[in-house]
Amino acid sequence: MNTIGLVAFALVGSSKAIREEFDVFGITIVGLAMAFAGGATRDLLVTRVPLALQSPIEIGLGLLGVSLAIALSVVLPSPDTHPITLVSDAIGLAAFTTTGAIVATEAGVSAFGVVAIGTINAVGGGAFADILLDKSPFILFDDFYASCAVFGAGAYVIAGTVGASGSTAAGVCAVVTVVTRLVAVTYDWNLPTVQGLGLLNH
Amino acid sequence: MNTIGLVAFALVGSSKAIREEFDVFGITIVGLAMAFAGGATRDLLVTRVPLALQSPIEIGLGLLGVSLAIALSVVLPSPDTHPITLVSDAIGLAAFTTTGAIVATEAGVSAFGVVAIGTINAVGGGAFADILLDKSPFILFDDFYASCAVFGAGAYVIAGTVGASGSTAAGVCAVVTVVTRLVAVTYDWNLPTVQGLGLLNH
Amino acid sequence: MNTIGLVAFALVGSSKAIREEFDVFGITIVGLAMAFAGGATRDLLVTRVPLALQSPIEIGLGLLGVSLAIALSVVLPSPDTHPITLVSDAIGLAAFTTTGAIVATEAGVSAFGVVAIGTINAVGGGAFADILLDKSPFILFDDFYASCAVFGAGAYVIAGTVGASGSTAAGVCAVVTVVTRLVAVTYDWNLPTVQGLGLLNH
Repeated sequence: MNTIGLVAFALVGSSKAIREEFDVFGITIVGLAMAFAGGATRDLLVTRVPLALQSPIEIGLGLLGVSLAIALSVVLPSPDTHPITLVSDAIGLAAFTTTGAIVATEAGVSAFGVVAIGTINAVGGGAFADILLDKSPFILFDDFYASCAVFGAGAYVIAGTVGASGSTAAGVCAVVTVVTRLVAVTYDWNLPTVQGLGLLNH
Repeated sequence: MNTIGLVAFALVGSSKAIREEFDVFGITIVGLAMAFAGGATRDLLVTRVPLALQSPIEIGLGLLGVSLAIALSVVLPSPDTHPITLVSDAIGLAAFTTTGAIVATEAGVSAFGVVAIGTINAVGGGAFADILLDKSPFILFDDFYASCAVFGAGAYVIAGTVGASGSTAAGVCAVVTVVTRLVAVTYDWNLPTVQGLGLLNH
Repeated sequence: MNTIGLVAFALVGSSKAIREEFDVFGITIVGLAMAFAGGATRDLLVTRVPLALQSPIEIGLGLLGVSLAIALSVVLPSPDTHPITLVSDAIGLAAFTTTGAIVATEAGVSAFGVVAIGTINAVGGGAFADILLDKSPFILFDDFYASCAVFGAGAYVIAGTVGASGSTAAGVCAVVTVVTRLVAVTYDWNLPTVQGLGLLNH
């Protein structure tokens, strides 16, 4: 799952950079940032050297995603919105949320900390890629995306609280994340804005 | 003071996100980022796990600020510029500058490092919130805000140098920060730009 | 070399902030961010307290660069594109890449990690300054700049692999970085975009 996620995340990041007419260095950096910045932030928060700087295989997977984005951009206008990419991205979201929740638990943070680090691991890379592209992170105003990571990591915490083993909790986290994400994509879920709730009377 | 600051900072961040029509997840994240990103950056700089990830009470205060922003937005167009918010924000600025200066002193950095970490603790959250909103951090070109933290942390260093106890230095820091900030708000102080100084002759 | 680099980087960052009409606090912060954020990120990635927070001399050099930017802006429209600045900046790029590669090697990361940390040390400050100015980092779509750091750090890794001593490898890194940068500036090199390669047929 982690393998699929790294390739899919790098592909999505690079596709966005291609659309903004970044040069090949920029395309590579945005792709790698999307794939690795979430995990690197997770590692910084628990004060350890980012794993991506130590594992050549992971970087290879990221570069594969970057290459795929460039190759596919020749034939497809938006390889990052292709159904195969959306499913791979959902799998990556689940894998990254689960890894983050496990690392956070080992670091001994609070229940909120576990949800926060799981979510940051999953969506931090995408948020950082959007900042590099000079946009607001899309997760903050569009789509039902980061919420899936919050639900997944929340399910992980609850499973652990009711006595599930670590691997059961991890499985629950991955399933909840990927299922809510695929349902959200299928039915085009969105969170409301305050304006959308019709509450403002000024 | 720290309690008031967390609520006020989260309220200000969330109010900005509401104005940009972010969804409720984005509103929550920008509010929490404004309240906690400065302290988290401080903790990363002295290489320890961010306190906010370990303390459920602090997160509760942040979420209270987010809820207040949503509730108040129904009746007020700009709850973040209400006089009560401005005073609470000044108190938070002072509390965060003082905490940052104390943590930095314990970490054994230089006098410049103490001022830098005190200021980052106080204004880093607001700067990060503005980046999430795809703006330049307001502290860099507007208002007399970060300067108050610089003065407060500078007073802390001077107090320590002339032999004041830790708690006296902390008190001096808090008073200098909150007083300069309230005076700056009252008299609408601004720092000059190079253009404003009328120096450019090209 | 490091001395020249700190002054030149701070000068370039502050010049950009002056052009955006930031106030004097903002000008100072963007200049210091450009000079120190790359090294601070390097230190965070290998989990140590940033050196800049411990060394008053380095901060003094950064503030000298900020002052030079303000002074020169009175007589020059763009001190950051003056030939002397471009050469000093290239020297700084080489010094920072070399320092980053050495620190990364000591931290025991992979070959990719050495290139990544060398490059981040060299260009991370400029990228962060651009984010503060609410722009996409210029290194991602313009110019042949970060690539010089990648080549330099790559040469460092190769030199180490074929048995060169640490100081020889450092010398090779610095020479490769500064020479490729000066050649790139002279001949106005650019990396292609995917669009520029004429590959897109949609």
